[in-house]
Parts: sequence; structure tokens; C-alpha cells
Amino acid sequence: MNIPEFETRLRVRYFEVDQMGVVHHSQYVRYFEIARIEWMRSFGLSYKEMEDTGALIVVVKLDVRYRAPARFDDILSVKVTVDKMTKLRIELSYVITRVSDGIRVCEGSTRLACVDRNANLAVLPPSIQALLEKGKAAGKV
Amino acid sequence: MNIPEFETRLRVRYFEVDQMGVVHHSQYVRYFEIARIEWMRSFGLSYKEMEDTGALIVVVKLDVRYRAPARFDDILSVKVTVDKMTKLRIELSYVITRVSDGIRVCEGSTRLACVDRNANLAVLPPSIQALLEKGKAAGKV
Amino acid sequence: MNIPEFETRLRVRYFEVDQMGVVHHSQYVRYFEIARIEWMRSFGLSYKEMEDTGALIVVVKLDVRYRAPARFDDILSVKVTVDKMTKLRIELSYVITRVSDGIRVCEGSTRLACVDRNANLAVLPPSIQALLEKGKAAGKV
Amino acid sequence: MNIPEFETRLRVRYFEVDQMGVVHHSQYVRYFEIARIEWMRSFGLSYKEMEDTGALIVVVKLDVRYRAPARFDDILSVKVTVDKMTKLRIELSYVITRVSDGIRVCEGSTRLACVDRNANLAVLPPSIQALLEKGKAAGKV
Repeated sequence: MNIPEFETRLRVRYFEVDQMGVVHHSQYVRYFEIARIEWMRSFGLSYKEMEDTGALIVVVKLDVRYRAPARFDDILSVKVTVDKMTKLRIELSYVITRVSDGIRVCEGSTRLACVDRNANLAVLPPSIQALLEKGKAAGKV
Repeated sequence: MNIPEFETRLRVRYFEVDQMGVVHHSQYVRYFEIARIEWMRSFGLSYKEMEDTGALIVVVKLDVRYRAPARFDDILSVKVTVDKMTKLRIELSYVITRVSDGIRVCEGSTRLACVDRNANLAVLPPSIQALLEKGKAAGKV
Repeated sequence: MNIPEFETRLRVRYFEVDQMGVVHHSQYVRYFEIARIEWMRSFGLSYKEMEDTGALIVVVKLDVRYRAPARFDDILSVKVTVDKMTKLRIELSYVITRVSDGIRVCEGSTRLACVDRNANLAVLPPSIQALLEKGKAAGKV
Repeated sequence: MNIPEFETRLRVRYFEVDQMGVVHHSQYVRYFEIARIEWMRSFGLSYKEMEDTGALIVVVKLDVRYRAPARFDDILSVKVTVDKMTKLRIELSYVITRVSDGIRVCEGSTRLACVDRNANLAVLPPSIQALLEKGKAAGKV
């Protein structure tokens, strides 16, 4: 199976760094989210429009392993890989490396599920499933 | 005129501190908000319930003067004073001091206005005005 | 083996909630940290003093499972349990529940390791080990 | 006098938006900082290197006026203008507009001062003054 990989880059912001001089460990969870939203955008899935339809994608499971510290002003690469995708959930994994030296900063994964406005689990809306299928066919998912 | 003053205390959290080892300057804006919400609670005005009625109170003007750095684990006192209150806006000022030595960390002010869900300015809902009047009568506002 | 449990409480702040009206999933990682620091304080270990000695405790592994959304103004209980403690690492698990209804919001765990200023793994300083031993003896760790 | 203006752009991140569906007012203070750091970079002044020399530039005064809400995924333009620059302080003003419709979201200003590691006010280091002069000569400051 061919696993397509998506990459986004970002620069560490000043206020994301703690008094040890390294990116605070909670911040990587946000970098994962930024990459996830850009990944969705890459095959035409707007998180914004998705929410407007009432479909909310929430993180139900998260894990991270921290390998090396990133610092203020570092440019980081966040790679997203699809591990599993069903009508009920999407499992993604992430690898963050520093662009300047290729050092792996951390890796992690998230399990996403779709919930309705009352926080009940729901299948992904057909329009989203269609986009995901289209992304798969184009080798982007 | 007697100006009642409200105080709340909080402890500086680890992730609120930047790599200079001091509370990031954007964080004080959040401390002001925390104190403002507690101030409202003190005379029976629940920010949560207020939002549920569709009345949104937004900050339209903010200023801060930074005097001395606060550090991780410091316990800070945030004092709130009402400078002006009309049907259209509430002006509050804030003084933050470190409890251990009484050093003034910063001071600032915010102008709050009420907006409807379309972000248009609106008068404060009568129920809120009533609570504010009641707070005034009780010497709490 | 008796596993002592530590509890701290906090109130969800306004800016911790996202546009779905629920606490952003990255925020719970910060709640874990807040509880961890209070847990250390409970047996005399000051995170602040520890850092001053050059010993840095970093998170090397994290996982979270999200069960139910928490909302603005909720009072949350964060319980900390020690899963494992050696000279090289501390494994803690966390359970967050909403105080008003006892609903479990999420649970998770972190593996902490000690690093020196160059980010190399190190054994915990003897003074800290002594405090941990003392905490154990007192049934607090 | 010709006032050079610097512009940087950024996209509103999901976790920067509060439950009203708008960017939290504290976030703009961080956008100002991001733009300020990019402005410094534009004439060769690395905030990172500057800190390594022991010179810390801190915000001593801040004001913001909020005009219109920005929302998740909006692309914002942050323009920086130098209002005043001496050996002791730098005054900058900022205008943030949404790129899609040109609506002004907010404006503000900061006064920056140089402090040493003990938080005492200091003149800007000669190397930084030289860079600022060079930037001025090149019409970038």
C-alpha cells in the first residue's frame, strides 16, 4: 500500500517557548492540529465549512513522543500520514523535524471522530466521505 | 464617590512564562479577563449565562503598562476598579501586584461594549443592567 | 501496594475554550502539568527550585484519551497517580473529571525524565531523590 | 518624513479563536509580536541573536483598539510602522486587516525598551543601534 504523506512547515513563535528555552510540550499538539487542517485543505476539505455543516471532528485519542527540543525561530516540518480511515474515524500520525539539521523533534498520532452538536459520535457526513474518497483516488489521502 | 474594588488572586503557571523567565506580556491581558469574570460573578452576573442570552461583551479598547516582571509560581493579586459604566459600555481598570513583596507588576484598562451575534453594538440587556444596578446599590460595582 | 492519589482543582478559563464551545484538546496537557507541579509541591518539591539547580524535568512521552467535553467555567478535578518511579524517570497518570456531575472528561499519562542543560538524560539529583523517598515514606508519592 | 512600513501575513489558527467564534482579544498582542520579530529580521536584526548577547527587548506599554472580529482561517495582514526610535526605546504601531475584504480588524502600538538580565533599563547595545541605523539608511526602519 502506498502511503501518501503531507508536509507543512511553520516557524516556532516566541511565546511558544518556555523558560527552559524550548518549545513547551503542549505546543506540539497544536502543531499537529495546524498540519491536520492544512492536510484537509490540500484535498479540498475546509475545516471551516465542515464545522458550518454541524459536523465536528474531535480528537478522541492522542499520543506524543518527544525526541529533541525545538527552539524559538526554528523552522519545523510537520509530516502527516494517514494510518486508517473509516466512516467513523480517521487515524493520523505526525513526525516533526527541524528543517535546518533534519533532527527529529517528536512524533505522535491522533484518532479523530465525528460528533454532532450534542457530542454524540456520528458517521462522517457523505460530502466529507466523498472528498476523502476523491483525495484517496488522487493519491493525496 | 466611593469606588469599590474587587480582588482576585492567581498563581503564574509554567507555560505562561517565556524564555526570558518572565510572564509573557500577552498573558496579563488574560489575567485581566480572569479577574473581570470573577468580578462579574461577585455580584451575580454569570458570563456564561450572559452569553447564553445572546449578549456578548467584547473588549473594544485595551491598554497595559508593564512595571516589573512576574515569574513562574508567583502569586499575583489582580484588582479591578470600575471607572465608568453606562448602558453602552463598561470601563474597568486593573492593577496587578505580586503578593509576596507587594511589587506592582502592571496596570491597565479595558473598555467593554455589548454586541449582538452579528457583532453590532447593542445596549446591555435589561437583566444585566438590573444586576449591575443591584451590584451598585450593594456597593460592589 | 497502596497507590496514593493527589488531587487538584481548577476552573476552565474563557480563553481555553475553542469555537466548538469546549476546552481545546491541547489544554488538557497543560492541566496535567498544573496538577503535576502541585503534586510535587505537596511533598516539598518545588519545580522552581529544582530548575534553579539545573535539573530539568521534561516530558518524554504523553498520551491522552478524551471522554467528554469540558466547558467554560466548569470546575475540574485533576487526579494524579504515580505509576512508576526510578532514578531515571517518573511515570504519572491523570484523570480529569467535572466536579458538578462527576463525568470523566479525559485521562492520560506522562513519562518524565531528567535532563541537564544540554538536553542529555541524567539521573534525578540526589536532593530530589531524597524528597521523593521522603514523600513515599509519608505515603504521599 | 517618509515612514517606511513593513507587512507580514499570517493565518488565524483554530485554537486562537474563542467560543464566540472570533479571535480572542489577547491573541492580537501575539500577532503584534510576530510582526515585530519579522520586521526586525527584515533589516538583519535577529531577536534570537539579540537575546544571546544578553540584551532583552521588553514591551513596557501596549494599547489596542479592536474594530472588527477576525475568524478562524482568515488571512491577516499586520503592518508595522516606526513611530519613534531612540537609544532607549522603540515605539511601533500596528494595523491588522483581513486580506480577503480589507476590513480593519484592529490597531495598536507598543513601546519597547531594552533591559539587562536584572530587568534594569539599558541603552540598546551598539551593534543593534548600528543595525537600526543601517535599516534607517536603507529606508527599512
